[in-house]
Amino acid sequence: MATPLDPTALGFLLADSRRVPMHVGGLQLYKKPPDAGRSYTRDLFDQMREVDDIAPLFKKHPYRSVKTGGQYVWVEDDDFDIEYHVRHSALPKPGRVRELLELVSRLHSTRMATERPLWEWTLIEGLRDGRIAMYAKMHHALVDGVSANRLLQSILTTDPDARDLPPPWAARPRARTARAQEEAESSLEQVSVSIAAKALEISADAAGLPKALWTTLSRSLRNETSPLSLYAPKSILNQPITGSRRFAAQSWPMERLRGVARESGTTLNDVVLAMCSGALRTYLEEQAALPQQTLVAMVPIGLKAKQSGSASAEGGNAVGSVMVKLGTDLADPAARLQSVHESMRDGKRALAQMTPLQIQAMSAIGQVPAVLPSMLKLGGVGRPAYNLVISNVPGPRVPHFFNGAEMVGNYPLSIPIDGMALNITCTSYAGHMDFGLTGCRRTLPSLQRILTHLDHELTALEQAAGV
Amino acid sequence: MATPLDPTALGFLLADSRRVPMHVGGLQLYKKPPDAGRSYTRDLFDQMREVDDIAPLFKKHPYRSVKTGGQYVWVEDDDFDIEYHVRHSALPKPGRVRELLELVSRLHSTRMATERPLWEWTLIEGLRDGRIAMYAKMHHALVDGVSANRLLQSILTTDPDARDLPPPWAARPRARTARAQEEAESSLEQVSVSIAAKALEISADAAGLPKALWTTLSRSLRNETSPLSLYAPKSILNQPITGSRRFAAQSWPMERLRGVARESGTTLNDVVLAMCSGALRTYLEEQAALPQQTLVAMVPIGLKAKQSGSASAEGGNAVGSVMVKLGTDLADPAARLQSVHESMRDGKRALAQMTPLQIQAMSAIGQVPAVLPSMLKLGGVGRPAYNLVISNVPGPRVPHFFNGAEMVGNYPLSIPIDGMALNITCTSYAGHMDFGLTGCRRTLPSLQRILTHLDHELTALEQAAGV
Repeated sequence: MATPLDPTALGFLLADSRRVPMHVGGLQLYKKPPDAGRSYTRDLFDQMREVDDIAPLFKKHPYRSVKTGGQYVWVEDDDFDIEYHVRHSALPKPGRVRELLELVSRLHSTRMATERPLWEWTLIEGLRDGRIAMYAKMHHALVDGVSANRLLQSILTTDPDARDLPPPWAARPRARTARAQEEAESSLEQVSVSIAAKALEISADAAGLPKALWTTLSRSLRNETSPLSLYAPKSILNQPITGSRRFAAQSWPMERLRGVARESGTTLNDVVLAMCSGALRTYLEEQAALPQQTLVAMVPIGLKAKQSGSASAEGGNAVGSVMVKLGTDLADPAARLQSVHESMRDGKRALAQMTPLQIQAMSAIGQVPAVLPSMLKLGGVGRPAYNLVISNVPGPRVPHFFNGAEMVGNYPLSIPIDGMALNITCTSYAGHMDFGLTGCRRTLPSLQRILTHLDHELTALEQAAGV
Repeated sequence: MATPLDPTALGFLLADSRRVPMHVGGLQLYKKPPDAGRSYTRDLFDQMREVDDIAPLFKKHPYRSVKTGGQYVWVEDDDFDIEYHVRHSALPKPGRVRELLELVSRLHSTRMATERPLWEWTLIEGLRDGRIAMYAKMHHALVDGVSANRLLQSILTTDPDARDLPPPWAARPRARTARAQEEAESSLEQVSVSIAAKALEISADAAGLPKALWTTLSRSLRNETSPLSLYAPKSILNQPITGSRRFAAQSWPMERLRGVARESGTTLNDVVLAMCSGALRTYLEEQAALPQQTLVAMVPIGLKAKQSGSASAEGGNAVGSVMVKLGTDLADPAARLQSVHESMRDGKRALAQMTPLQIQAMSAIGQVPAVLPSMLKLGGVGRPAYNLVISNVPGPRVPHFFNGAEMVGNYPLSIPIDGMALNITCTSYAGHMDFGLTGCRRTLPSLQRILTHLDHELTALEQAAGV
């Protein structure tokens, strides 16, 4: 019954600390169905709790004792208590999005109890516009961020009339959720264990680097257009952090972003990055902390299985990363967009020339954020390898529903770490682009202002592109 | 700066577990002042957070490392974050007392993060009757229950017009709060360290008992009217527990209880115990788990300093305990009240004959619940020494206010432990008696029904006494 934690899961469990909790999250916004009665939210909540049979993924927790030889193993929770994991909360008045983001920031700040199954789910009511929200929290030792997002989405359907849909933790649910559960169960194991294990050794011995990664890093020292950049400036984003989280989120119509991409001859992803660039520039100027040199973002990008070679066995896609110069040193929005566009293009070309092993080593960095600080000397002496991570994950194109409630927003929450105080993750969904910013509230004061700056930047880009 | 934890605090810290978290709590209900505007609650919350200087008690947390020689010491939190400790929540609709008790049960179920200062304070809005609630949570390693309650009350005033009163965690507050803070700082140290230390040894060596306690226990084996009883029956209250908490609370007019006491020639405390007796009898009958023999309650009682001898140096009162036969085996309410009355009278007489050391040893039991299971073999083989603890703590007689809001209810939450799944604590306040029941939700299903039974029992006692 008891299976040992694989090295990746173990790494996340051991790395978890008050300052750097290792859980991911998701905030989803829903519109109640037109026929919703007064007790709709309460009924939905009751239904989510009334699950007789819980899926194994949601029942296991890490455990070690003399009997396990001091090793961490997964064991089933004998005292599993659905009331602990599935919670019903409400917002203080006036119930604006501001109050919602404050609550979610707080929920995302607290460490998970590792003696319990590593997930929590909170249904939130009290938004004054009548929408309801769900905040899901899962430890990275349990699933990776991609699997967590898939699990959240597996409960959704395109059928607004479908009811009695089971929550993600129900055992023997419909095929889609079952598949997402299975994938999540093995998601961390699928990370090449040898690479992850090598990467973990680093934290014990910061002097060494996996050979493949070292090769890539060395190349980047000689070649500015390498996908790995060692030319990022010092910035306030790259400091030791505290355990206080701030989450900020907002959506923009995809059509506006597409318009800019079309008129400027760039890609949608370029526009997302340019919005971030301009917004970060304004924010850092406000904080009197804008570096002279451009900020560099690490941008994970999907690689076709064929191209990456390594992932073809599972038929899935591998993930590589490109280091993108955001052009935050440039005052002109159009120039920033152009800089992002060129940097992205060069990075992708370089990535295409990398060997599968090199790409795998790079993935390991993303998969093992716990070791990033020592690995890349973030927060320490010298300059960081990059300043922040900006991910853009494609989501469903058409509206999805959960028991009649239409999902109208879907914002991932990620893990800030020492030396990497801000993470921006975007998801496209049903005609809009949802931005989620997770950061350390004390390292980055008033980071929610970046939302306003993102909005201004999109307008500036539209004007520059002549939309 | 770093002071070691005294043995009592250390005991509570080490005993803390998922199943038996070692924190106490308090739920207070407030009525807004007549002139409260729309933003009254939000303003109150902002004011409670805007405290520049935090009192030492609320800034320290336990810490150990190689540098401290592996010993736990109190250190000041370098990263103290008021937003973590002071929280603003709201109730889901319909915002009845039921929703409030559900939220408080959940908040009381979760373990505290011992890497942070050991307190949390939640302002709760959304009661449909417009009242606001506050739930305070403090670890027993930081303060004992009495000091926690004093801290909560130290912020109150009898002046409904007083505003800008500081919260309990403000440094240099008015004299009353400062004194309560100081007392709380040393409250655990004042417990006779040698007794507590001896008691703690028990958990390592269940075969031994402190000599003074052993003497008392031995006496009780020979003497039914000893304040220590070893004649309690097995019951569902006396099992190993889980980490799921249910809190239930309700108030009754003091005048009704006083009427019964007056007409029946008993005391107010007797009536409280008789209400508990009848309610427990009905509850256990519903659960088909009523023991044939009467349940025995451990009832802490205050002793005059002179009588107890030991506490006279501090000028305070010592606490002793009486074992009260509740008469749950009797079908007649009047007979139960009489049984409680006689048992209480006998117990007090016996207590008066005890030596200060014996009383101190008994107090140590109450102060160190962590060791009770092994000490008294609760939950193990054999019968428990008693079935539950019922405390009746006198509170203020006149209405008290916090920044204009009138406190209308004050319910302590305590610590259920293995073998002792239910605790009942009553406080008198401004003309009513507030009952607070803290229990393990899974050991005692639907324990909130005891509230209904308490209400029926009071009516039955009134009829029996001819009120």
